[in-house]
Amino acid sequence: MTKTIAELETPCVLIDIDRVEANLKRAQAHADANGYKLRPHIKTHKLPRFAKRQVELGAVGITAQKLGEAEVMADAGLNDIFLPYNIIGATKLGRLKALNDRVTLAVTADSPETVTGYAATFAGASRKLTVLVECDTGGERCGVQTQVQALALARQIAGTEGLRFGGLMTYSPPGGTDKAEAWLRQAVGLLKQAGLEPVVVTAGNTPDMWWTGESVVTERRPGTYIYYDRFQVQKGAASWDDCALAVLATVVSRPTSTRAVVDAGSKALTSDLLGQEGYGLVMGTDLVVKALSEEHGVIEMGTASDMPRIGDRLRIIPNHVCPVTNLFDSVNLVSGDAVIETVPVAARGRVD
Amino acid sequence: MTKTIAELETPCVLIDIDRVEANLKRAQAHADANGYKLRPHIKTHKLPRFAKRQVELGAVGITAQKLGEAEVMADAGLNDIFLPYNIIGATKLGRLKALNDRVTLAVTADSPETVTGYAATFAGASRKLTVLVECDTGGERCGVQTQVQALALARQIAGTEGLRFGGLMTYSPPGGTDKAEAWLRQAVGLLKQAGLEPVVVTAGNTPDMWWTGESVVTERRPGTYIYYDRFQVQKGAASWDDCALAVLATVVSRPTSTRAVVDAGSKALTSDLLGQEGYGLVMGTDLVVKALSEEHGVIEMGTASDMPRIGDRLRIIPNHVCPVTNLFDSVNLVSGDAVIETVPVAARGRVD
Repeated sequence: MTKTIAELETPCVLIDIDRVEANLKRAQAHADANGYKLRPHIKTHKLPRFAKRQVELGAVGITAQKLGEAEVMADAGLNDIFLPYNIIGATKLGRLKALNDRVTLAVTADSPETVTGYAATFAGASRKLTVLVECDTGGERCGVQTQVQALALARQIAGTEGLRFGGLMTYSPPGGTDKAEAWLRQAVGLLKQAGLEPVVVTAGNTPDMWWTGESVVTERRPGTYIYYDRFQVQKGAASWDDCALAVLATVVSRPTSTRAVVDAGSKALTSDLLGQEGYGLVMGTDLVVKALSEEHGVIEMGTASDMPRIGDRLRIIPNHVCPVTNLFDSVNLVSGDAVIETVPVAARGRVD
Repeated sequence: MTKTIAELETPCVLIDIDRVEANLKRAQAHADANGYKLRPHIKTHKLPRFAKRQVELGAVGITAQKLGEAEVMADAGLNDIFLPYNIIGATKLGRLKALNDRVTLAVTADSPETVTGYAATFAGASRKLTVLVECDTGGERCGVQTQVQALALARQIAGTEGLRFGGLMTYSPPGGTDKAEAWLRQAVGLLKQAGLEPVVVTAGNTPDMWWTGESVVTERRPGTYIYYDRFQVQKGAASWDDCALAVLATVVSRPTSTRAVVDAGSKALTSDLLGQEGYGLVMGTDLVVKALSEEHGVIEMGTASDMPRIGDRLRIIPNHVCPVTNLFDSVNLVSGDAVIETVPVAARGRVD
C-alpha cells in the first residue's frame, strides 16, 4: 500500500520528484546548448540521490559549501567535488587532505594565509590539491578585490609544491552577471598574459544560470534550480508550476475571520526574507504567511472568509528552499498524491 | 584530559554552564519572591538535563511547543508538561492521548473545533485531559478574541466528558504585559461569575518575566532566560555578561581592511532579526554580523583594522538563541576554557 500525502504528519516537506526531474533536465539541456558546464550546488537538497542524478544527467561534478557536506557526498560515492571555501585550521586541513585522497577535489583561497595553510598540509602529498582563486566580483563576501591580487595569488598557488592552480571562482549575488563578467574577463586576460590561463572559471547561481550572453565563465554552480522557491519565481527564473518543494502545514487556528494560523513557523520555513514580503506563499492562492514565530505561521487575508478551515492542509512555497532543507531530518518524495519514499536529509546540519 | 574550547571545530555552539546555573537560579528566586510559578519553555535549550535542573530549582513543570518536543522530554523523565498548542488531527490526538497516560499534561484550545477533537479522543479515557483556553491578548497569533468567547469555550470544555477546564493561557509579545494583564483580568472576572474560576492563568516570556506589578497571572513561561541573547539584552532583560550561549566562529577571510568573514552564516545564526540591525554581536566588541549567507557571516568594521586575523576565533551572541539551538545536532557545555561535555540536542528538529 502506497502512503498518501494525506497520511503525513505536519509540518513536513514535500518534494515533487516529477518536477525535480524536469527541473534537472531543463537546466542540463540549457548548459549543453549554451556551452557551459554544470556543477550543481548540493546545499539545496543535501541528498546523495539527487546529486547522483545531477551527475548522471551530465553535471561535471558537484559543489558543496562545507567540508562536512563534501564528506557525506564522498561517502555516498560522489567523486568530483568542488568546495568553494577557505579551509582554515589544522583539523579541517587534515580532513581536507583525507578527502583529497579519495575524490577529485578542488577548493578556493582568497588570501596568502589560506594558501600557506594548504601548502603546509599538501607538501609532499601523493595527490596535489587543486586551488581556485576566489574573486569578489560584487558579492561583497569573500574574494580578492582586484585582478592584480588574483594574479598574485594564482602565482603563489602555482609556485607551491603540492598545489595546482585550478582557475577562478566567484560568488556573485543574483543579477550581478554583467559586473561579474567584466571583472572576470579582465582577470582572465591578466592571467593569460602571465602564462597562467585558468582552466576553470566558475560562477553563478540559479537565476543567473539562464544567462545566454557571451561569457568567460566555463562552469556554473546553481543550487536552487532543483526545487526553485518564491524568490526564484519573483526573479523570473521559474514559474510557480516548477516549484518542487513545499512545506505541508495544517491550519490550527482561525482566531478571526481574516486570520488563519498554521503549524509551520520559522522552524519549518526559516526567517529568510530575500526581499520578499512575508515568509512564503500558499500554493494556488495569493495568501502569504505574514508573520512567523517558531511553531506558528500567521496568514492574514484581505477579506473575511471561512476558508481555510481548522484542519485544512496548505502547501507553502518558502521564500528560500535551501535553509528549509537544513531544518528537517527527512523529506517526503512525492508523485501526485503518493508518497514514494521518506528519505533522511543526509547532509543536514553539516556546518563544519 | 579535558578538552578545551580551542580544540573545537567551528562553527559550534558554546554554552557557559556557570552562567546557565546563575540565570536559572535568579529567575526562580524572582518567581518565589513575587508569588508566581515558573514553567520554563524548553524550546530554548531542548535539553532534558536543563529541563530537569529547572524543575529541581523549583519550576512547577515545563512548557513544550510541539508534541514531538513533549514526547522527548517525557521519555527523559519530565513528568509535568504544558503544551500550549491546538492539537489537530487523528494521529496527533492519538499521540496526545498516549502522552496524557504517562505524564501530567495540559494543552490549549482556542476554538470549539479543537475542543471537539479532544472530546472525541478522550471520551471514556481513564485520565482526563486538562485544557486551557488560549486568549489573544495582543500577540495576534492564536487565541479567542473576546472574554465572552473565552467563557463559552471554558463552558464547552468543562461540560465535556474526558476533559477538564484548566484555566487561561496567553502568548503575548514581549512588552505586552499591561494590555495582556487587563485582558486577562476581565476574563478571570467573567469566569468567576460563571463559577468557572481558572486555576491557572499562564502568560509571558523572558523580558516580561521580570514584571513585578500586581497580576492575575499565576504562572509564567519564559524560555530564553536560560541563555539570553542580543534581543533580550536590548530589551533590558539581561546584561551581556548573562549571555550563556555563543556561536564560536573562525575568521576565514579578510577581503578588505574593513571586512572580516566568518564561517558562521544563517545555518548557524539563523536569519532572525527581532528588530535588531544585523545578525549577531561579536562578544566583547561592538562588531556586528552585518550580512549572512548560509555558510558565511560578513562583519563590516567602521575603521580599517588588521584585526581580527584569518584563523582568529570569535564568539558571536545571536539575535535569538532559540532557533540557533534547533540548527545544531549537539552543543558544547563549557566552563571557562574547558569543554565539560558535548551533548546532543535531544529535542532538535521536533517540528510535529
